[in-house]
Amino acid sequence: MSLSFVPYPELERIRSLDVEPVERVAAFADACRVNTLTMIEHAGSGHIGTSFSCMDVLSWLQLEVLGEGDRYFSSKGHDAPALYSVLIGLGRIEFEKLFGLRRLGGLPGHPDVRTTPQVVTNTGSLGMGVSKARGFVLADRLAGRRGRVFVLTGDGELQEGQFWESLQPTANRRCGEITVIVDHNKLQSDTWVSKVSDLGDLERKVEAFGWAVRRCDGHDLGAFSSALAELQASEPERPKLIVADTVKGCGVHRMEPHDVPDEETSLYGFHSGAPGPEEYATGLNELLERLNGRLERLGVAPVGLEERDAPARRAPERPQRLIQAYSEALLAEAEREPRLVALDADLRLDTGLVPFRERFPERFVECGIAEMDMVSQAGAMALAGLLPVCHSFACFVTPRASEQIFNNASEGTKVLYHGSLVGLVPGGPGHSHQMVRDIALMGSVPGMAAVEPYCEEEVARVLEWAVHEAQGPVYVRLVSPPWPLGFEPRVDFAPGRGTVLREGEEGTFVCTGPVLVSQAYAAAEQLGDWGVIALPWLRGADGEWLADLAQGRIVCLDNHVLAGGQGEAVLAALPDEARARTTLIGVDRVPECGTNDEVLRAHGLDADSLAARVRAVTHA
Amino acid sequence: MSLSFVPYPELERIRSLDVEPVERVAAFADACRVNTLTMIEHAGSGHIGTSFSCMDVLSWLQLEVLGEGDRYFSSKGHDAPALYSVLIGLGRIEFEKLFGLRRLGGLPGHPDVRTTPQVVTNTGSLGMGVSKARGFVLADRLAGRRGRVFVLTGDGELQEGQFWESLQPTANRRCGEITVIVDHNKLQSDTWVSKVSDLGDLERKVEAFGWAVRRCDGHDLGAFSSALAELQASEPERPKLIVADTVKGCGVHRMEPHDVPDEETSLYGFHSGAPGPEEYATGLNELLERLNGRLERLGVAPVGLEERDAPARRAPERPQRLIQAYSEALLAEAEREPRLVALDADLRLDTGLVPFRERFPERFVECGIAEMDMVSQAGAMALAGLLPVCHSFACFVTPRASEQIFNNASEGTKVLYHGSLVGLVPGGPGHSHQMVRDIALMGSVPGMAAVEPYCEEEVARVLEWAVHEAQGPVYVRLVSPPWPLGFEPRVDFAPGRGTVLREGEEGTFVCTGPVLVSQAYAAAEQLGDWGVIALPWLRGADGEWLADLAQGRIVCLDNHVLAGGQGEAVLAALPDEARARTTLIGVDRVPECGTNDEVLRAHGLDADSLAARVRAVTHA
Repeated sequence: MSLSFVPYPELERIRSLDVEPVERVAAFADACRVNTLTMIEHAGSGHIGTSFSCMDVLSWLQLEVLGEGDRYFSSKGHDAPALYSVLIGLGRIEFEKLFGLRRLGGLPGHPDVRTTPQVVTNTGSLGMGVSKARGFVLADRLAGRRGRVFVLTGDGELQEGQFWESLQPTANRRCGEITVIVDHNKLQSDTWVSKVSDLGDLERKVEAFGWAVRRCDGHDLGAFSSALAELQASEPERPKLIVADTVKGCGVHRMEPHDVPDEETSLYGFHSGAPGPEEYATGLNELLERLNGRLERLGVAPVGLEERDAPARRAPERPQRLIQAYSEALLAEAEREPRLVALDADLRLDTGLVPFRERFPERFVECGIAEMDMVSQAGAMALAGLLPVCHSFACFVTPRASEQIFNNASEGTKVLYHGSLVGLVPGGPGHSHQMVRDIALMGSVPGMAAVEPYCEEEVARVLEWAVHEAQGPVYVRLVSPPWPLGFEPRVDFAPGRGTVLREGEEGTFVCTGPVLVSQAYAAAEQLGDWGVIALPWLRGADGEWLADLAQGRIVCLDNHVLAGGQGEAVLAALPDEARARTTLIGVDRVPECGTNDEVLRAHGLDADSLAARVRAVTHA
Repeated sequence: MSLSFVPYPELERIRSLDVEPVERVAAFADACRVNTLTMIEHAGSGHIGTSFSCMDVLSWLQLEVLGEGDRYFSSKGHDAPALYSVLIGLGRIEFEKLFGLRRLGGLPGHPDVRTTPQVVTNTGSLGMGVSKARGFVLADRLAGRRGRVFVLTGDGELQEGQFWESLQPTANRRCGEITVIVDHNKLQSDTWVSKVSDLGDLERKVEAFGWAVRRCDGHDLGAFSSALAELQASEPERPKLIVADTVKGCGVHRMEPHDVPDEETSLYGFHSGAPGPEEYATGLNELLERLNGRLERLGVAPVGLEERDAPARRAPERPQRLIQAYSEALLAEAEREPRLVALDADLRLDTGLVPFRERFPERFVECGIAEMDMVSQAGAMALAGLLPVCHSFACFVTPRASEQIFNNASEGTKVLYHGSLVGLVPGGPGHSHQMVRDIALMGSVPGMAAVEPYCEEEVARVLEWAVHEAQGPVYVRLVSPPWPLGFEPRVDFAPGRGTVLREGEEGTFVCTGPVLVSQAYAAAEQLGDWGVIALPWLRGADGEWLADLAQGRIVCLDNHVLAGGQGEAVLAALPDEARARTTLIGVDRVPECGTNDEVLRAHGLDADSLAARVRAVTHA
């Protein structure tokens, strides 16, 4: 499949057109939409809807507003493809990186100051933007520098408490240097913001915190520029916020939400992921028509394109689909346990809650992007006799609600926590989403059981145990992407124990989750006389059992940092003798961004690296 | 010293007086103030200012408002002495517990559902109240039960993002069952709310989130009752909030803030801690005058009192004062390092920042009770070239800002984090404040150094290293209460290594912090041929060095849960041979509340228990 893109000289030509700025920037934005579409299609994933909704505002800021000493960043961060396209179009990021989105050494799924020029701060964890902006302003003031800070936020993002926490101190310190633009495209990850957790009267709310607020059409650059100018002129010491009404997916009819009914159960299809080949072709044509229409009206030549082959991608063979297995298991347990209620933080699609929501609408609580609120709410529900299950990606629920989770545990009740998207893969979204600290966070909560299944069957066993047998709170850790094991799974399920998948006298891998179990299994085959034990218990392993069955060198693998991970817990649980023959291998730094294969290799956790690392240990 | 209290029959007489409810409740509240004063004086610590400011509202709710199925709790939680006094006065907690505040088996420093009747939920971590209230309401609705929920909050507490995060969903779900009362006493931990982080137009803000709001004098029960009745009648489906204007310390002139100037540097003296003997006597007389004046006006007999001796208390001998040492060290480093800025979350007194604020006002940023905001702000400051140091109690900053701390670390900058009040002691405030998870939380952040000094001299060395030598972020963990070691401290400071305080061939304790080092030292003396190594590095120990010097059985002690604590990290760092002679001892459950001695003993971490536990291990 061939992908089209607008080459750099054409981008340069468009942004240098001697026409009204509003016309020039709109054309540049559409050219960047073309490149964003291609960038995401080439990468195989990326947030396209939000990249398109913010593209006009972003282009205006970059081309017409930002000056020496000014800073711009997106607080939501997942609109990174839009930012990259614009910076590429401005010659500030090398053009070839257009084909490096979500690749190792390329452009990460969310912005990263360490790898990408012009990136001001790392974002992707929501709600931090205004706090960061104030940090920049106060640092500048202390240094006697003068600069403005422009922050783009999402709208769903405004459900996060940190946004509101940060507003009043910003007004109190008279941070007029700060302008926030809300990319108000009305759709968050799953569906309409108004249906997930309505924002109420946003303008009135922000104004009540002492900010100056305007609202305008975020695709009408004249209106946007007037709102901006008006705010800058009128109230110099007040922080400013513009609610920019935008359309998610703007520019491609099919990616705009025309067909998403105004209902809680609607799902919007273009939040993340790459369009299919047909969607790509249609979208490209539409964008080109739009762009060339503009150029024609300006009396200049249509855009010249170049082409590049899309990389071949193959679907994994017979993968384990843990989220789907979870989805089914939760439904099954909910049929047996009427006290079970499910809480969600705007990830019902990704955490497998859609069937639950359909079957038990009255036992489903959509909380929006408000993890602290979700968890404390669940704590009270447990005190009132329910069995709440809190759902989100591990990177969001386990750190953001850490104090709330401990608070619940201190009450001696039972709350279940679902944390998915754990570990290094998918490698594309980057470190804000690659959660490698959650075992430490959850395992350190007294009384908390922490369990991670490695295959679909084990998901069902884990959930059954968690719902019916566990006496206290349980953290269920789940790898999200479908993942092939390379062997036929088998499960021996018993508290503290695991499944011996392969025996070997030289050594034994101990690990869990489909990613590491598959790599360990393949490494053991390479090494020859090596065994593999899949141990779902992240803490509380039966050390005597393990020491008996794990022959030779015991190598514990963690899809997590070593600190507070499964390996350290296993080591502590082992009897003295077995401790002296144990090696721990895990993630040793902030996760790299790239394809799954690239990332596993970069961290030395793919099968080949594991085999080599084990040889180095055992032959040392 | 003798303490006076209002015995149960007198409380019963007062709350049964056949007079206007407003008069009866006011008298009951004053009687409860007497008992609260005595309760806190007997305990030696407790939050008196806030207990007095909310006493009238609390008494009104408990005596006149709450009915079958209704729930009341305080979100701030540190007004627990007021709640206990009222519940004791109502016969719902046994009277003798008046003398059990902050004692093992008594009444914990913050409310606990597991130990205290009538307590609805555990609080003490701020900002969770409305989320919990909604959880109760939704659970009740699901069960077909009908009940109202009354939540008391502080005003400083409203700086927390979770409060604002929880407001909109509560309005969206039409939780008219919920009434929040803000105990607006205008003073938070350190000083005036308006000087720490002003709340702005609180009524307008809350109304903008779709709530019904009223404001009244919180010591005028007629006004409060009217506001409540008006709200309940007028808008049944909207959640309700009353801003109750109160006076911190209300009832004792000297505890009211008459002498606290309206300045940022003012400090209010009666937030926590017990009054001195003279203050107690004056306060008691004033409260009795107030109470008997009311009774006289009602034409009934003055209150009859009983007496009880106050327990003897002795100050620790030659204690290590780590916070004071930190305070001095920070000042010294700030003189040498002009990029150093200090951020505080309303604990400048407790974290030792008062001298810094005086010396470098322009390099001091007071953030209020807004840990997420503080940490993200610091991250941006670091990107802009400063060296920010974030301060708070470990129980607040390390879990509440966990995602923000990781986000900062992902940028490769250097931010320092001060977490004090760590571990089991002080044992009085209870588990919301006894932080035993912070090593896991901070140690799992890639690149984060985590260090805990055991004596004053080591505090200075740690800070010098953190400011001038550390390449990345550092977590400095500090025990707060002055603590005697029982020996003369000595420091050998080198990365990964510690100080051999005592040698012994049978075994060696490895630990840090004054609490455990002192207990280990005393235990080693009991055991005879035992050594003690103080190891400040919570992760990254030099295992070879340790294995060489630590003879016999190595016993790692953690003032922390084992999961992700120092012991597990040391075990992993040790060479194979030494791992096989290592034992880990740490906290194994949610911390108990009590005196420091009681708590250490309950967790088996006092010297006697340690000696016994070691004997059990080595003679097994």
